[in-house]
Amino acid sequence: MTTDIDVVVCEVGPRDGLQMLSQFFPTEEKLAWIRAEASAGVREIEVTSFVPPKLVPQFVDAAEVVRGALAIDGLIVIGLVPNLKGAERGVELGVHKLNFVMSVSRTHNLKNVRREREDSIEDFRRIAEMLRTLPAERRPRLIGGLSSALGCSYEGSVPVDDVRRYASALAEAGADELLVADTVGYADPLLVRTAFKAVMAEVGSLPVGAHFHDTRGLGLANVAAALECGVRRFDASLAGLGGCQFAPGATGNIVMDDLCFLLDSMGLRTGVDIDRLLAVREILARNLPQIPLYGALARAGLPRNYLPAAERVQRTAAP
Amino acid sequence: MTTDIDVVVCEVGPRDGLQMLSQFFPTEEKLAWIRAEASAGVREIEVTSFVPPKLVPQFVDAAEVVRGALAIDGLIVIGLVPNLKGAERGVELGVHKLNFVMSVSRTHNLKNVRREREDSIEDFRRIAEMLRTLPAERRPRLIGGLSSALGCSYEGSVPVDDVRRYASALAEAGADELLVADTVGYADPLLVRTAFKAVMAEVGSLPVGAHFHDTRGLGLANVAAALECGVRRFDASLAGLGGCQFAPGATGNIVMDDLCFLLDSMGLRTGVDIDRLLAVREILARNLPQIPLYGALARAGLPRNYLPAAERVQRTAAP
Repeated sequence: MTTDIDVVVCEVGPRDGLQMLSQFFPTEEKLAWIRAEASAGVREIEVTSFVPPKLVPQFVDAAEVVRGALAIDGLIVIGLVPNLKGAERGVELGVHKLNFVMSVSRTHNLKNVRREREDSIEDFRRIAEMLRTLPAERRPRLIGGLSSALGCSYEGSVPVDDVRRYASALAEAGADELLVADTVGYADPLLVRTAFKAVMAEVGSLPVGAHFHDTRGLGLANVAAALECGVRRFDASLAGLGGCQFAPGATGNIVMDDLCFLLDSMGLRTGVDIDRLLAVREILARNLPQIPLYGALARAGLPRNYLPAAERVQRTAAP
Repeated sequence: MTTDIDVVVCEVGPRDGLQMLSQFFPTEEKLAWIRAEASAGVREIEVTSFVPPKLVPQFVDAAEVVRGALAIDGLIVIGLVPNLKGAERGVELGVHKLNFVMSVSRTHNLKNVRREREDSIEDFRRIAEMLRTLPAERRPRLIGGLSSALGCSYEGSVPVDDVRRYASALAEAGADELLVADTVGYADPLLVRTAFKAVMAEVGSLPVGAHFHDTRGLGLANVAAALECGVRRFDASLAGLGGCQFAPGATGNIVMDDLCFLLDSMGLRTGVDIDRLLAVREILARNLPQIPLYGALARAGLPRNYLPAAERVQRTAAP
């Protein structure tokens, strides 16, 4: 299914983009957004979070959103899970991937999921064990997510060796893939290269994705650095919606539209039709008129020489 | 003078940032801006353009701005020159560097300076010859600038071999340094690597700087790619002011404040105090209330773990 693309882009806006909003984004509009992005060619979407609705009322409609998303042909539907209970809900609803999140920063982990990192690893192990009891056709893939891995609003710098160590622990506990996240936008290209090389050397052939925020403008530079390390899966959100309510100063995710343009420009196929993707911003604009929508491409338009990577004749240095 | 820094950042806002504005930016305010940035540690500033004032009235005060800038201790004062006459004005006023600009794109060169590229090379040769007749202490350094080198609003893609060829011609004609410019923000990290490697292989030890625009959000990713090629001099403008009146769709330069943060984050010393640099934005805000000021750092603030590169203990991977 993914042999015709070089890099997977995963839309996380319906989860990461909405979790900070006090305003409820109507369920039908969430599904309109998800359907429109899937139509534009986005293959993976994190559609909701299986946190208790009383903690984050935005996700009270998790079941309905998942059911609607599962009806979309070819879409890989992902749900964030904070614990075993969330994972059980995800399995029951039939999502394709569970994204389990713990923080490499001890303080952020305590604030975000209220436990020590070692306890989070144990939670993860229990989820992996539960999944192993399921028949293969009902078993979602399990993503081990390491948030605040490249910096923390509370602790500042995060040691690369901690990232490596917890990546190793999640891999050993049964992750099908890993996701290293710069939750608050502290990373720079040098740190990205150091951290991803350390993690990838540790976990061998296990796929490692990247989740960057564009808090201080370095998001796409960090993507380019991660690409060089061999990362081929990136989270992003349309128009750069996003943040984390327990990480002060964490503004938006990297902008999905600009990410796809970056990858396309570099000749890497994402499967996404950028014009159709840009048109999806209208759904956000009509539902969130008070929220700033980011994106350089939306402002400047596609360049005159634009050709999707899939149609591009190979760029040559010949005269 | 530059032994305590790793990368030179050159502010081009007073020239590139203002040339599109119909509104005149008061001379004393230009000088306040230039002085404030120099105080913040910016070592090179392109302060004006020696084009005929009837073409660009913004630069009618070129002489006064240059005189004011030359009074700033330690600042390298640069003027853009379109032709021999402009270079003679620059010499007369005593600027430290002349930035001669031609376009690699034939159409853009015709629109921008109204001549064929080969004629621009001849103009450049005449300027270099004129400079050689001057005593060393009065002789400015000559920058050979290649604009629209990585894409053109009129022509689309620009062949890398053309960039290499005109870089070679400028080097041979007497450039002291080169400046490769993505005038309209078409470049991506892959193209940057290809083009800069080609140019640098061609011109040997001649310094090659980069001038990027952030039109489609890839500006800092392109900086990171150029850094890898060995580029150690970057143009930028405070708050991302800028563009080119003859290049439709060319929005701002890369944001100086975000550039300094990127370099600093990567442990590269620029000599710039970022807090003081951010404070200079106030001068733009009060003079250009109608112009959007860009910048992720200005929005998000410095991260908690921020330490200037010069003061940084080496980042280690130890626990």
